[in-house]
Amino acid sequence: MMKIDVLSLFPEMFSVPMHDSILGRAIEDHVFSLDVTNFRDFTTDKHRHVDDYPFGGGAGMLLQAQPIIDAFEHTQETARKDGLPKGRVILMDPAGKPFKQHDAEVLSKDEHLTFICGHYEGYDERIRSIVTDEYSLGDFVLTGGELPAMVMIDAITRLIPGVLGNNQSKVEESFSTGLLEEPQYTRPADFRGMKVPPVLMNGDHQKIALWNQKEALRRTYLRRPDLIDHSKLTSTQKKLFADVRIEEEEKRQDSTDKKNPFTEGS
Amino acid sequence: MMKIDVLSLFPEMFSVPMHDSILGRAIEDHVFSLDVTNFRDFTTDKHRHVDDYPFGGGAGMLLQAQPIIDAFEHTQETARKDGLPKGRVILMDPAGKPFKQHDAEVLSKDEHLTFICGHYEGYDERIRSIVTDEYSLGDFVLTGGELPAMVMIDAITRLIPGVLGNNQSKVEESFSTGLLEEPQYTRPADFRGMKVPPVLMNGDHQKIALWNQKEALRRTYLRRPDLIDHSKLTSTQKKLFADVRIEEEEKRQDSTDKKNPFTEGS
Repeated sequence: MMKIDVLSLFPEMFSVPMHDSILGRAIEDHVFSLDVTNFRDFTTDKHRHVDDYPFGGGAGMLLQAQPIIDAFEHTQETARKDGLPKGRVILMDPAGKPFKQHDAEVLSKDEHLTFICGHYEGYDERIRSIVTDEYSLGDFVLTGGELPAMVMIDAITRLIPGVLGNNQSKVEESFSTGLLEEPQYTRPADFRGMKVPPVLMNGDHQKIALWNQKEALRRTYLRRPDLIDHSKLTSTQKKLFADVRIEEEEKRQDSTDKKNPFTEGS
Repeated sequence: MMKIDVLSLFPEMFSVPMHDSILGRAIEDHVFSLDVTNFRDFTTDKHRHVDDYPFGGGAGMLLQAQPIIDAFEHTQETARKDGLPKGRVILMDPAGKPFKQHDAEVLSKDEHLTFICGHYEGYDERIRSIVTDEYSLGDFVLTGGELPAMVMIDAITRLIPGVLGNNQSKVEESFSTGLLEEPQYTRPADFRGMKVPPVLMNGDHQKIALWNQKEALRRTYLRRPDLIDHSKLTSTQKKLFADVRIEEEEKRQDSTDKKNPFTEGS
């Protein structure tokens, strides 16, 4: 069973999102365990402060190394007694490497992970002495590391067998092919005048499969052309993709023609 | 005051992270308001189902358009009575455009935002008829849209004046220069043998400023060279960057020499 340790000043933030959800069921079913430790409990400061002014000046306060490193040594001691390895120690930081699905896959096979949740003001560099991996969710700034840690935990643990049951999502498949998902529809067939494409309702599974592939290619082409790796497309996909490009070029041409006052009505 | 509406099947997930934190204080101080609506309350299905099988077959279930669109019309009606505009309607989706700090800045100036939290199984395409913007946090798959919506809300609302007080973080500054943050240190000067660089403790502010710039350049060069835009560097930074590159090249040379059994000890 995977063990996840989290070091955070706001342990209660994890209470509902990680327990009252799909992941909560997985914890109940002992698929993985999650322990959140408040490193404020480890400060040796009599006022329970965990931050201090930066050396050399500058705005704001920095988290000190001592409370985090002592909390880490405590959770490691507990893990050791349970026969667990040290595992990876992950710091959520804007300077970390961007987290991707491939990282989630690799991390989902580990026995023990520790997440250190920083703080919007920054931290003492020496905290990095216990860190093995630094991740960032993307190029944006947050008030703390708790939400991105929960995002990573969600992405990682949903890949552990047993968490999602048989309901592996289609998103998953689409990620492994490198294409975005095609549009999908459920009942009713006509919702307030918006109709389901007829091909999806005629029961011809071969036609449906082709439509799905074509519309996945179209969506990827229009939104994330960077994801299309020509060398990975099957010969059917290559043909469909050529059609998509012609169709989209014609649409663009049509809308340019319509917008051009010199051609309109001429 | 900004109003944020969220449509979600798991409203309780927002209770602690959005209320027992820096953002919670901002909500108490009426800097912005957050209302989470459970769209299951709007289903017309007698079993309160909100999903159904996909047309054309395929794995899993899809969220239906009706409950989400009816919930949206309800929250819009309430907002209209409060004199608020329709505002942007944001869908969290892996096929959306990658969320960046610039998007957070733009969205932080809006009066009204609505977030639609999907579901790991996908949804009926017609839900997109009410959506103005689709965002993705990155190329990874999650069990639902709640955590990424919270991440976006955190990134957006922390930029509203009054949320962080005067404690604008240094991360912020570093983002606007396009460079990662330099290492920072707080007390003690010597922590278990790990010492603060002497330059930060000698009180020479000019030297400290140069050290900071140089180490920010070094970290960015080593971790995210893609962020360095040469044309935006000042002449001082260009000189410092040249030094960093020479130093790092020498370090690499040194470690190659040491690892090479033919040169070692010869």
